[in-house]
Amino acid sequence: MKWTKIYLSLVLSTVLLTLQAQQPKQIPKMESAMTEIWEPVPEVVTPGKSKPDGTLSAPSDAIILFDGKNLSSWQDKNAGMAQWQVHDGVFTVNKGTGDIFTKQSFEDFQLHLEWMVPANISGESQYRGNSGVFLQNMYEIQLLDSYQNPTYVNGQAGSVYKQSPPLKNAMQSPGHWNIYDIIYTAPRFKENGNLLYPARVTVVHNGIVVQNNTQITGHTPNVGLPKYKAHGPGPLRLQDHGDPSAPLSFRNIWIREM
Amino acid sequence: MKWTKIYLSLVLSTVLLTLQAQQPKQIPKMESAMTEIWEPVPEVVTPGKSKPDGTLSAPSDAIILFDGKNLSSWQDKNAGMAQWQVHDGVFTVNKGTGDIFTKQSFEDFQLHLEWMVPANISGESQYRGNSGVFLQNMYEIQLLDSYQNPTYVNGQAGSVYKQSPPLKNAMQSPGHWNIYDIIYTAPRFKENGNLLYPARVTVVHNGIVVQNNTQITGHTPNVGLPKYKAHGPGPLRLQDHGDPSAPLSFRNIWIREM
Amino acid sequence: MKWTKIYLSLVLSTVLLTLQAQQPKQIPKMESAMTEIWEPVPEVVTPGKSKPDGTLSAPSDAIILFDGKNLSSWQDKNAGMAQWQVHDGVFTVNKGTGDIFTKQSFEDFQLHLEWMVPANISGESQYRGNSGVFLQNMYEIQLLDSYQNPTYVNGQAGSVYKQSPPLKNAMQSPGHWNIYDIIYTAPRFKENGNLLYPARVTVVHNGIVVQNNTQITGHTPNVGLPKYKAHGPGPLRLQDHGDPSAPLSFRNIWIREM
Amino acid sequence: MKWTKIYLSLVLSTVLLTLQAQQPKQIPKMESAMTEIWEPVPEVVTPGKSKPDGTLSAPSDAIILFDGKNLSSWQDKNAGMAQWQVHDGVFTVNKGTGDIFTKQSFEDFQLHLEWMVPANISGESQYRGNSGVFLQNMYEIQLLDSYQNPTYVNGQAGSVYKQSPPLKNAMQSPGHWNIYDIIYTAPRFKENGNLLYPARVTVVHNGIVVQNNTQITGHTPNVGLPKYKAHGPGPLRLQDHGDPSAPLSFRNIWIREM
Repeated sequence: MKWTKIYLSLVLSTVLLTLQAQQPKQIPKMESAMTEIWEPVPEVVTPGKSKPDGTLSAPSDAIILFDGKNLSSWQDKNAGMAQWQVHDGVFTVNKGTGDIFTKQSFEDFQLHLEWMVPANISGESQYRGNSGVFLQNMYEIQLLDSYQNPTYVNGQAGSVYKQSPPLKNAMQSPGHWNIYDIIYTAPRFKENGNLLYPARVTVVHNGIVVQNNTQITGHTPNVGLPKYKAHGPGPLRLQDHGDPSAPLSFRNIWIREM
Repeated sequence: MKWTKIYLSLVLSTVLLTLQAQQPKQIPKMESAMTEIWEPVPEVVTPGKSKPDGTLSAPSDAIILFDGKNLSSWQDKNAGMAQWQVHDGVFTVNKGTGDIFTKQSFEDFQLHLEWMVPANISGESQYRGNSGVFLQNMYEIQLLDSYQNPTYVNGQAGSVYKQSPPLKNAMQSPGHWNIYDIIYTAPRFKENGNLLYPARVTVVHNGIVVQNNTQITGHTPNVGLPKYKAHGPGPLRLQDHGDPSAPLSFRNIWIREM
Repeated sequence: MKWTKIYLSLVLSTVLLTLQAQQPKQIPKMESAMTEIWEPVPEVVTPGKSKPDGTLSAPSDAIILFDGKNLSSWQDKNAGMAQWQVHDGVFTVNKGTGDIFTKQSFEDFQLHLEWMVPANISGESQYRGNSGVFLQNMYEIQLLDSYQNPTYVNGQAGSVYKQSPPLKNAMQSPGHWNIYDIIYTAPRFKENGNLLYPARVTVVHNGIVVQNNTQITGHTPNVGLPKYKAHGPGPLRLQDHGDPSAPLSFRNIWIREM
Repeated sequence: MKWTKIYLSLVLSTVLLTLQAQQPKQIPKMESAMTEIWEPVPEVVTPGKSKPDGTLSAPSDAIILFDGKNLSSWQDKNAGMAQWQVHDGVFTVNKGTGDIFTKQSFEDFQLHLEWMVPANISGESQYRGNSGVFLQNMYEIQLLDSYQNPTYVNGQAGSVYKQSPPLKNAMQSPGHWNIYDIIYTAPRFKENGNLLYPARVTVVHNGIVVQNNTQITGHTPNVGLPKYKAHGPGPLRLQDHGDPSAPLSFRNIWIREM
């Protein structure tokens, strides 16, 4: 019947118009493959091998900065030979000879570094096994005997020195090796020298996260406030702090540029 | 003489005004102690012990999610017993029994998890050792045999699934254990449900950084686009993917709330 | 011929294998509608009307904090009546009566505020038209006559006080109105009181961006270093600084919760 | 009495020792001047003058991209003359002549741009006054008649096209001018072409914040997913969209490099 048809058509139109007003447009269903990305293909890196000390050896794309034999990757502040002492597969701060620097400069990186406070350490607070690793020669991650050794918390092991205390105190007791795994993103500056993005650092100390993508607010002076000054790639620096306690030793240092 | 005096006074005034204009005020020198922070004192955490497999055992503040004995920290989707197979100090996906979930929920955390693709793995692309760990039950870090197994790069091991490919392919060959160390910061939402800050994740695969504080852009569906929907703490979930290849095994799972 | 077939088949296989190795899987083409989002639908806000002073009146969703008539939205530190002087559609600092605070507390917001240094201003450096607007009662954006008035740059108008200098000096001369448009995202804290995300602020001074999503590093004391301490929503505070120069006036203050 | 003295002294010692155990080292008090920064001195920029339309004229350091007279700062895609129509102090899309581009390229900037949908607009959804401003020729902020014109929300006025819907719908009705104030920070790439930091944008639409430091996730195609590809400075681009509705007009366009 004609009237029935017209009536039905009216009802249907009303329903459709109502749906149109209430419902958003139907989004066509995607296929799984539409969100696949196929390139660039990440480079293969062969992981390090298991070692009985609870670490892995350096991955295939790492730059070995100390392999137990010599300090050929390091130099003193005058670009002369690094004067620290290599012995028994490790090297030890040689007090009074000054900080040592990698010959190579770096920007963003992953760093593995092991360090030990000697069992016969003495002194207290900052005068007990003090050293530091300066990222890009500027930003110090503190090394210190922080095992049962109260000091200011932004100066204990695992701190961004005088800026950010570690989340936890993950220190080994003297005579045992500490492991730092550091993920560092360099600061970026504008062409006019202004800071664009600050440096960021994640520090894992003996397997425990102590800095989680912490923003570094500037250089890390002992006296005064952090400031940024535009710079490019820089070396790692290890500190000859000069405190009178027994000196720190280092081993297994490698770095991966990121 | 009067005029001399006036002249001198004028010169002096000029000099002083010039100095005032040119020189910023002298900033008084700080003392070292002024930038010390003494509290709160970071909690002491005893690091894990060295193990011959190249890892450390769980730190003292970790929650052990699998210690080789049973799945008592896990459950199935109906809060019933997890049906995956525990054997030889590891557990293995039990195909068809579904994903398993930690009984406990988490917000921000550090997760250690080891997983192995069986030596007799077959299949290719996503049908070769596929599983996943879902952070807060929502955001999948992919597990897959990515050793010489081309697939879409945002679906290979170490990817935030369908979002962010790993920086490197750090995969062990089948029959060898892979290690994931994951630092996760949960997303935060406003009271009205809008996203305030997205989730962020750092993933270290076999000692190699494959995600560096990557922002997660939403959930990780196989089909469709990532979206955020406000949520609180959530469990870890391990995926029973259902691909026909031999199933993955797991061991040494611990988590630290951050 | 058989050999031809085998040869062709070999060639073909080689070609196919080469293609397979070189080409990623064909990604199916998406449709435009697949990346459409239809809800939630942003709320309609009616913009303000053009005013001859170069600003727009408050948008429809703004909370009016001063409309030229009275200080009913404000109170003194003891929750008593705000004692500053309302006259001629503006209000003026009433020296010695103390800072004034909004009765309402806020978290994230957009703030519009106009302020004027009197034409007869005297004094210099910080003793020349000093006041401030404290976001959440904690984080001061400096108000000061910075028109040809040298002072420390992290204390001039548009600075996050003692933290971040303005990108430019956008100051009107005394006797003319200054406009601040401020976009503020409150800091977030973890349940244990630790900072999760710092506060962020964008400041537009007289139409010129002087802070671009600047991270605030803690409270803004005159003496000492910025620190964070967990807090919830807080009022706006306007400062009765107490410097001996002629006092500032304010008008057209509105805020939009975000 | 002697015993009293000894007793008092013991009590005092105990109190002092207790205090010593509970209190951290005394931090020497800083002086106000120690947290002053005196240089570099921010450059003086003279703000624009009040205009009766509720905006300020361009600040002294702005580059004027359209002053009502001609399109001499713009060109077509072949570096030929821009063919859009200048009339009555504004210019209007000339359909079919293609997008227009600034001759100059930009990195980080503040952009002011006014645009109007004609009063006689017709059509609906994306076919109603569609245009766009592409930041660095890559990242589209949508222009559309979004006054009572439902469409997908990540395609309405104030959206980062196909990415981020505006926080609010701040649209003027047809025949009235809309104001965009845009603060843009360009993406940064590593030397290997990988993304280091994504682009970020704040958009204020008619005085209402509609994007607050939104991260842009890649280019803004109509079909497909956002991707990043390393690039340097780029021009602004205005879109000749080609939808059949009446064309948009523009006026008062200026930009400040940041």
